[in-house]
Amino acid sequence: MEKTLVFGHKNPDTDSICSSIAMANLQTKLLGEEVVPCRLGEINEETKYALNYFDVEAPKLIEKVEEAQKVILVDHNEFTQSVDGIENAKILAVVDHHRINNFQTSEPLFYYAQPVGCTSTVLFELFNTNNIKIEQNIAGLMLSAIISDTLLLKSPTTTDKDKKAVEELAKIANIDLSTYGLDMLKAGTNLDKYTEQELINLDAKSMEKDNFKYIIAQVNTVSIPDVLKRKEKIEEEIKKVIKEKGLCLFVFVITDIVNSNSKAIVLGERTDVISKTYEIKDNLAEMPGVVSRKKQVLPLVEKNI
Amino acid sequence: MEKTLVFGHKNPDTDSICSSIAMANLQTKLLGEEVVPCRLGEINEETKYALNYFDVEAPKLIEKVEEAQKVILVDHNEFTQSVDGIENAKILAVVDHHRINNFQTSEPLFYYAQPVGCTSTVLFELFNTNNIKIEQNIAGLMLSAIISDTLLLKSPTTTDKDKKAVEELAKIANIDLSTYGLDMLKAGTNLDKYTEQELINLDAKSMEKDNFKYIIAQVNTVSIPDVLKRKEKIEEEIKKVIKEKGLCLFVFVITDIVNSNSKAIVLGERTDVISKTYEIKDNLAEMPGVVSRKKQVLPLVEKNI
Repeated sequence: MEKTLVFGHKNPDTDSICSSIAMANLQTKLLGEEVVPCRLGEINEETKYALNYFDVEAPKLIEKVEEAQKVILVDHNEFTQSVDGIENAKILAVVDHHRINNFQTSEPLFYYAQPVGCTSTVLFELFNTNNIKIEQNIAGLMLSAIISDTLLLKSPTTTDKDKKAVEELAKIANIDLSTYGLDMLKAGTNLDKYTEQELINLDAKSMEKDNFKYIIAQVNTVSIPDVLKRKEKIEEEIKKVIKEKGLCLFVFVITDIVNSNSKAIVLGERTDVISKTYEIKDNLAEMPGVVSRKKQVLPLVEKNI
Repeated sequence: MEKTLVFGHKNPDTDSICSSIAMANLQTKLLGEEVVPCRLGEINEETKYALNYFDVEAPKLIEKVEEAQKVILVDHNEFTQSVDGIENAKILAVVDHHRINNFQTSEPLFYYAQPVGCTSTVLFELFNTNNIKIEQNIAGLMLSAIISDTLLLKSPTTTDKDKKAVEELAKIANIDLSTYGLDMLKAGTNLDKYTEQELINLDAKSMEKDNFKYIIAQVNTVSIPDVLKRKEKIEEEIKKVIKEKGLCLFVFVITDIVNSNSKAIVLGERTDVISKTYEIKDNLAEMPGVVSRKKQVLPLVEKNI
C-alpha cells in the first residue's frame, strides 16, 4: 500500500517544513505505520538553519501526487497553494491556521484549524490531546516554526496559545528562546545568494478571488534598503510573472524583522487595491507596522478588490 | 454587542438541534458570555422526544443573519445548507463531521471536523479537552444526537469514537441506552402527521456539484409500505420541487430503522445517476442494507454524476 504523505504549501516556509515533519511523526506514532513528510519546493535559509541545528533531515521533494494518493495537508488548504494533482488525491486530514478557501473534499475528513499564529501551535495541542510525548528535536522544529511565523512572538498574529506552546517547547528542546530565535530569523535574511527570480518566489502565495488572480510574496530582512538596491531587477522579474500567469496584482512585501516595518513593491493592472490604503510612489508602498501577510496585507487586498 | 449564534443545517435533525445546544453551552462556559443556540427550521418528532425527555427548550428559530453577525456552525459547513446571509456573516467556528464543500471564509477560524458518526462525538472531545464538565441534560441531548445519526450505532458511519462517547454520555445522562434509543427513534417514525410536502422536506439536503443541483431527502420508518401508500402524492410534491429549484435529481430515501434497509423514490432528468447502481422500477429503487445518506447514497451520486 502507498504510504500517506504529509506536506505544507508550495514555496515552503519554516512552518510548512517543520509542521510536515512533526505531523508525520505524530501520525506514524498514532497509526503504527510510516507516514512520510514531504515538501513542495526548495528549503529556505532560515529553515535550513533549524534543520541543521536540530539535526533533522529535510523532507522528500515531491512535485505531484497520483490519483487516490492518501495525503495530509499542513499549513495550507487552498488547492492553488498545494501539490499538483491535489484535486484527485484522498485528503485524510488537514491541520492549519489559515482561512478556508478553494478547498473541497468528497468525503468527511479530519480537519483541525485554529486562528493562531502557527500550525505547530495546533500540532502542539494534538500531541497533548493524544498523549504523545514530543521528542526533543521535534519540539525544536515546532518551536522554530512558531518563531518563524510570529517573528519571535512579535507579529499581530501571535495568540496566547502560541506563547504557551513556545514556552513548553523551549523547555523540551532545551534552548534559549531569544538567542536561538534571533539567530534563526537572521539566517533567513541572507538574501544575497538568491537571484531576483528566486527572491520573488521564496515565499510567494498565489491567491484567487472571483477570477481576480494575484500573488503576495514576502521576504524578511534586517535592511530594507539592501533589498531595494535590486528594485529594478526585481520589478522586471515580477512583470514577467504577471504576464506568464495572467495576474491582476503582485505585491512583494519586504519586512524589516528588527523594526517590524515593511515596504512593498506593487505591480499589475490593479495596484489601486493597495493604493486605496497605502500611497504608492515609484511602485513602492510604505507599510509602517506591517509584518503579517495573513493578518495585515491579505484582508486589505480582499476588501479592496 | 450582538451575541454569537450557533446553528446546524436547514431542515434540522436531532444532531443539528442538540449539537447547537451543546456547543452554545460549551462556548458560553469558555467565553464567559452568552452564546445563543438557534435552529433553521421546524423541530421533528424525534428531536421533540429528546428535548422533552431531558427538559430542554428548543433553540430559537432564525431565518437569516445580518452582515458581520458572529456565527458558529455545527453539523454542516456547506453554504447551500446554511442560514440565508451566511456569505456575509463572520464565521468564528465550525464543528462538523461532513465533507467540506461550498464553504469559504476570508479569515482564519476555528474548524474541527472528524470523520465520525455525529457532531456530538466531536463535541464530546472538545468538552474533555477544555476540561468542561458536561451537565446531565446536555449529555442526554448529545447522546440523542449520536443515537439519531448512527441509528443506535448500527449505521456504517459509526466509529469507535462514537461508541466510546455514547458509553460515557449514557453514564452521565443516567439512562438505559437501548430502551431510550429505540423509543426516541420510534418517535421519529410517526410520519402520518406530516403532509407530503412536509415529508420530503423533513430531512432534505440540497447539494450542488459542477452546476448539477440535486436533493437527497431521508425519512426513518418502521414500515416502508406504510410510507409507500402515499407514493403518488409524494411524487407530485417532488416534481414540484424539481421544477421550482431547477434540480437534475431528487432522491427520497425511506429507511427501515428496524431492518436497516431502504427504498428510494428517484425523480428528475438524471435518474441514471442512481440506476447505474440500483435498478429503478416505477420510480422506486430498492437499496438493501442502505441506511446512511452520507456514507452510502451521497458518494454514489457524486461518483455517477
